[in-house]
Amino acid sequence: MGRTLNSEIISVGTELLLGHVTNTDARDVSEALASIGINVLYHTVVGDNPERLRKCVEIAKQRVDIIVTTGGLGPTCDDLTKEILAEAFGVELKRSEEEYTQLYDYITARHEYTENNTKQAFVPAGCTIFHNTCGTAPGCAFEKDGKYVLMLPGPPKECLAMLRLSAVPYLKQLSDDTIVSHSVRIFGIGESGVDALFADEMNRMTNPSLAPYAKEADCLLKVTAKAKTTAEAEAMCLPVITRIRERLGDFVYGIDVENLELCAAAALLEKNLTLAVAEGFSGGELSSRFSVLPSADAFFRGGVAAFTDSAKFALLGIDPVVILTEGPVSDEVTAEMAENVRRLLNADFGIAVTGLTEASESVNLPAGTVLIALATENETFVKTSEFGTARSAGFIRRMAGNTACDMLRRYLNGLNVL
Amino acid sequence: MGRTLNSEIISVGTELLLGHVTNTDARDVSEALASIGINVLYHTVVGDNPERLRKCVEIAKQRVDIIVTTGGLGPTCDDLTKEILAEAFGVELKRSEEEYTQLYDYITARHEYTENNTKQAFVPAGCTIFHNTCGTAPGCAFEKDGKYVLMLPGPPKECLAMLRLSAVPYLKQLSDDTIVSHSVRIFGIGESGVDALFADEMNRMTNPSLAPYAKEADCLLKVTAKAKTTAEAEAMCLPVITRIRERLGDFVYGIDVENLELCAAAALLEKNLTLAVAEGFSGGELSSRFSVLPSADAFFRGGVAAFTDSAKFALLGIDPVVILTEGPVSDEVTAEMAENVRRLLNADFGIAVTGLTEASESVNLPAGTVLIALATENETFVKTSEFGTARSAGFIRRMAGNTACDMLRRYLNGLNVL
Repeated sequence: MGRTLNSEIISVGTELLLGHVTNTDARDVSEALASIGINVLYHTVVGDNPERLRKCVEIAKQRVDIIVTTGGLGPTCDDLTKEILAEAFGVELKRSEEEYTQLYDYITARHEYTENNTKQAFVPAGCTIFHNTCGTAPGCAFEKDGKYVLMLPGPPKECLAMLRLSAVPYLKQLSDDTIVSHSVRIFGIGESGVDALFADEMNRMTNPSLAPYAKEADCLLKVTAKAKTTAEAEAMCLPVITRIRERLGDFVYGIDVENLELCAAAALLEKNLTLAVAEGFSGGELSSRFSVLPSADAFFRGGVAAFTDSAKFALLGIDPVVILTEGPVSDEVTAEMAENVRRLLNADFGIAVTGLTEASESVNLPAGTVLIALATENETFVKTSEFGTARSAGFIRRMAGNTACDMLRRYLNGLNVL
Repeated sequence: MGRTLNSEIISVGTELLLGHVTNTDARDVSEALASIGINVLYHTVVGDNPERLRKCVEIAKQRVDIIVTTGGLGPTCDDLTKEILAEAFGVELKRSEEEYTQLYDYITARHEYTENNTKQAFVPAGCTIFHNTCGTAPGCAFEKDGKYVLMLPGPPKECLAMLRLSAVPYLKQLSDDTIVSHSVRIFGIGESGVDALFADEMNRMTNPSLAPYAKEADCLLKVTAKAKTTAEAEAMCLPVITRIRERLGDFVYGIDVENLELCAAAALLEKNLTLAVAEGFSGGELSSRFSVLPSADAFFRGGVAAFTDSAKFALLGIDPVVILTEGPVSDEVTAEMAENVRRLLNADFGIAVTGLTEASESVNLPAGTVLIALATENETFVKTSEFGTARSAGFIRRMAGNTACDMLRRYLNGLNVL
């Protein structure tokens, strides 16, 4: 097995030092580098200040093999990362005609071209250009004096896309080891529960390794193996994944799936079934999550954000008397919303979400209570969850959305829904 | 004015370098330091490795006046921050009897006391102890050779509480400056356009300073002033904000507002008016953004995600023949959606969004085209935008949402809507 490469991530941007934004780029890059077996030894954040950036680069050159920068590639006079890195490694910046053309077309399609944009088309001579699929500033990579430099844009979406499409493939070829990594996605049991179950194994295992990642409203275990071939690495991961599945049962909702809505959508598509959604307090959160999926046209019929009691009547025909007697957040109203939206939009399934993120005079339930109904042609399930108020309203909405997707997944896979 | 103190935040923890967690501590500390006029020049993240931490502290000692560490104060053998910092500054660690007693009581009230916990009661001799109000490990601060060292715990809740209760008061007495900062929020002109207009000023100005920030679907200019008093700093910001307003006119949608939906919501609330929303391709994005606002109950009537043509008929009563002849993404259909949802939900305004993120056989428009209709009691405006396909579908949705909010804001403020 080849030597292990050490790296440092240098994030450039005064906004990070002012605390205006969180450095999610460093986390994303770290996670990606770890997944291909590159050690991250340091993160450094420095402002848009040429002298200080220069010194940080000098320090990094001494202590690691790979420098990955994020930020400072844009069109403004503050954006200096390329200039400083090129200078520090004694390479020239040259205008890439291909990048210039793409940049020019991209910008003129939207608004007027201002000359400062041209700066973005300059890249270190002889570098590998990383095209930016979600913005204007390209990234790049080069090797000099046995060190590797990669530059990625600062906006998290652009950084993440370029990381996956360009930086990881570039770095993978520097090592003759193959790293295989699988994410076991878990919903319905918290991170500390997962941690308690697997702490011993996580500490003991190195290759394959096992590590927990807490996402906002679900969690995952990452299984990573390093070997000479992919097949070998896959064979090392397999028994670990099997063991996790055995221990967590149907809390595992998928392997290498991005999120619960994709998982529910896949189950719908496989059976050629359709879905409609009615939402109370969540006001379109769930509908929005389904409609943004590339496969939405094939299964999603639409949704209703019945945010007020009168909207529940006007859009879904819920009897105002039932709302009055049972309450807007009740089994009866939630079930009827799911049943009615299903019929109205001629779908196989209707899901309704009601709840409250803050204490309310009209609802006699603790804040953070969420009701979710899943209606099929023949039956309707209603599940009550309490997410409390310790976290944000946004968290409760996302947990509600995840719970709804999980109920649908469970139904479609013949598991217990409630 | 006193001299400006420069600082570096050193976060200690291998979990940060593996990308398991995001470094929110560095953001929180940065924001707090900026608010009391202390410059943060660097963030450094290093693992639980004594040798590397020692070197990072040596570097920091050379380049800043204040070192703030987060993490590594706990009871495990990995937790080495106090030991390394004390060594680097030549101070001894001594057991604080007061902290030991509190620690002992805190832990025995919950579970058995294990001897490794005692480590947490050791603090640098002569330091100011920061008591931990939400956990066990105390923090501390000391001054040596003209440098200040502050150590805070890693868990974000503990770090934030100690920051507010102990670290900020400790640091405030080192400086007599106050910092005031305002965000001028801009929509309708891109970051590079703003930059082109203000580049000269941004370079020239130091106090007050002017800096651009690109958000995903809008941008902002931050004006920051440092002075002896808040009133003085405010007075320094004011003419800069006035100048920006003069130059950008109604592209400025607000000062210190979080986003466009809050701005539109505030204008609605002020006039006691209500809103309903109908969405095609965006499937609940806009509805979701309005419903999550704390003030939503007072103005938001609800929404419809008419994701399919049949949903446009079933939920909004749009004539299928019109959809067939004009197309689902057309002025006619979009206007009717806005008008119908307004009537249906008895609101003062109806907004409808239609569009396509990918080329479609049934719609003869370029991918990335978005139509937005704003219906009032008396008239309906329809605006066509082209956001292209270079960026994600999510970006097009957010731009569509922002454009819709901006149209409403413009209408309510008597500006040109289209």
